[in-house]
Amino acid sequence: MINYFSSDFKLGILGGGQLGKMMLYDTRKYDIQTYVLDPSDEAPCKIACNYFEQGDLMDYETVLNFGRKVDVLTFEIEGVNVEALKALEAEGIKTFPSAATLEKIQNKAVQKQFYTEKDIPTAPFKTYQKIENLIADVESGARSLPFVWKSATGGYDGKGVSVIKEAEALKELPDAECIAEEMIPFKNELAVIVARTPSGEVKTYPVVEMEFHPTANQVEYVICPARIEDHVAEKARAVAQKVSEAFEHVGLLAVEMFQTKEDEILVNEVAPRPHNSGHYSIEASYTNQFEQHLRAILDLPLGNTDSKVGGIMVNLVGDKDHEGEVVYENIDKIMKMDGVTPHIYGKKITRPFRKMGHVTIVNENIDEARKVAEQVKGEIKVISRS
Amino acid sequence: MINYFSSDFKLGILGGGQLGKMMLYDTRKYDIQTYVLDPSDEAPCKIACNYFEQGDLMDYETVLNFGRKVDVLTFEIEGVNVEALKALEAEGIKTFPSAATLEKIQNKAVQKQFYTEKDIPTAPFKTYQKIENLIADVESGARSLPFVWKSATGGYDGKGVSVIKEAEALKELPDAECIAEEMIPFKNELAVIVARTPSGEVKTYPVVEMEFHPTANQVEYVICPARIEDHVAEKARAVAQKVSEAFEHVGLLAVEMFQTKEDEILVNEVAPRPHNSGHYSIEASYTNQFEQHLRAILDLPLGNTDSKVGGIMVNLVGDKDHEGEVVYENIDKIMKMDGVTPHIYGKKITRPFRKMGHVTIVNENIDEARKVAEQVKGEIKVISRS
Repeated sequence: MINYFSSDFKLGILGGGQLGKMMLYDTRKYDIQTYVLDPSDEAPCKIACNYFEQGDLMDYETVLNFGRKVDVLTFEIEGVNVEALKALEAEGIKTFPSAATLEKIQNKAVQKQFYTEKDIPTAPFKTYQKIENLIADVESGARSLPFVWKSATGGYDGKGVSVIKEAEALKELPDAECIAEEMIPFKNELAVIVARTPSGEVKTYPVVEMEFHPTANQVEYVICPARIEDHVAEKARAVAQKVSEAFEHVGLLAVEMFQTKEDEILVNEVAPRPHNSGHYSIEASYTNQFEQHLRAILDLPLGNTDSKVGGIMVNLVGDKDHEGEVVYENIDKIMKMDGVTPHIYGKKITRPFRKMGHVTIVNENIDEARKVAEQVKGEIKVISRS
Repeated sequence: MINYFSSDFKLGILGGGQLGKMMLYDTRKYDIQTYVLDPSDEAPCKIACNYFEQGDLMDYETVLNFGRKVDVLTFEIEGVNVEALKALEAEGIKTFPSAATLEKIQNKAVQKQFYTEKDIPTAPFKTYQKIENLIADVESGARSLPFVWKSATGGYDGKGVSVIKEAEALKELPDAECIAEEMIPFKNELAVIVARTPSGEVKTYPVVEMEFHPTANQVEYVICPARIEDHVAEKARAVAQKVSEAFEHVGLLAVEMFQTKEDEILVNEVAPRPHNSGHYSIEASYTNQFEQHLRAILDLPLGNTDSKVGGIMVNLVGDKDHEGEVVYENIDKIMKMDGVTPHIYGKKITRPFRKMGHVTIVNENIDEARKVAEQVKGEIKVISRS
């Protein structure tokens, strides 16, 4: 085994945001040396890594030169230069997940086609090189409304995805490669995180459920375990594992899925890294997702993915009417509630809907946690200093 | 409420060792700015704090100047200049625990006398200004052998404590203020961590038990919950709370106690900070001790002290035959075991018996955890690179 602990071994992380910041808690716990590259001089990772470099993650030379400084390279964001990863792999620098895997995932059209090839269930779709081809399909009646439009590249946090209900809306779409997907009426939106090592050890986390706001079309709570039947949960975990193995993915893969009205599982999309849907694991799981990602990419034994207690995660996003220096109003009130842990990502400036942190609520009883989560949601506000 | 989160507020920590390092995981989680002072340029805290200063913790001017840079000052080691803390308090800088509390605890003779004054049960003792007074007592027969000798100041990790079985051994003792304490035959050595805020909110953690090696007189396992009767546990928590309130202590106070053959609880000594006996809480408790210390000193609501699961802690100390660059032999083997988390403190050089890290073992069933702990102990070795 390579000696990772308190040694000269160096792990590189592309991206220095909150996911990297939380990963650093665990590199610190194991005393693994870390190098971080991020475009922002105020990246949350800037402290707690051993070496920080400011630079463009999409720039070939920048990523190549950064990667040459480390022994193993990983990323906390998909938007990185894949060609540079390929060059680094050719030089013998281990990149996990691999450039080949990331390349398939970065482009949603390629990702969807891959599911079809690998016999992985997903919503029916068609890919379009240009927006005019999609418009022609709609005009000819070959594609009926409504449907889901997804940009093949560049989507993030709900950007690059739209439900198209009328032809008029097509005019607003960018002229870029895209997918049109059938709208699937679903019971639940689920996610499963899979961990896989270079040696091929695989473990799946329990299924989590995204609970949506009853009127606004927004995820309010990520709930673990999902309140679904056991046979559905087993199917979801099996599908997620199949996806991970198809990609020959190494590290964490978050697989987002729909549970249809007929209890079918359809893969929506994947993220090849620690994921928002796994944040609950810091407080609730035997092995949190960040530690598990490290274990996976370093080919260490994977930890137990079971939960100690039920967990619910609420995102802390900037209030829609506030922009400026951040204040977490009523944070002391939520800290009084049972089993509540706020996580503050360290961004100084709040903006409408900016992800500023999250709150985890744990309880042996998931229904009890759900009640507390609603109280948390009702109290805390991310606003700007008046 | 003061705005601690992503703000200009500054927390100072005197000492930059492993306790400070683990505290920084939680200051990062809350995005609280931290300043750390430590004599070593290789202190484990050096990364992950916002500002690091190298300097002598016992030097009046160094501590005073450092303290003036922050809003609230705390410490992770008792050996700091108390006069500087007093001066800082006079200048309006909040110091938690207070200089007055620390002063009583730093000197074990003062600490023991304080217990007597406050009617807190402790083993019978006598204090001596000089070693010659103790020798005279032994020679005159006023003090019979065996007894426990403790240096009034400077004791740490078993240093400064000796069981004196024969008069000959007295010659080896330093000529310093000391205590002679009756040897109490005890069933168990227990500890309780108490958290207390400036507003007076108090919570105690469950009782932990130190399990000793059957032949070597060394703690092998710290076990939570202690395998003792409920009425004894309740008594231990009540005594610990009484000690915290007597000291008007703010922050965490670890209270070490003996359970006598008659189920009496006697206070042995206290540590006014996060403590080795609370490390299990990172994995096992709803609120880990480091987060709780922050909540306490910042006068935030205290978190739930209950455990999610049973926890056992094993210290990782340097092998007695090794000195040099550290290697954690078989760490991959223990990471295969269920519920096992190693914590590596980040010291590059191992020395015989040096505290290099710890391992936590969690399980719903404490007896199951105890079995795994024994396997951990049998596998991992802290050695030097060959």
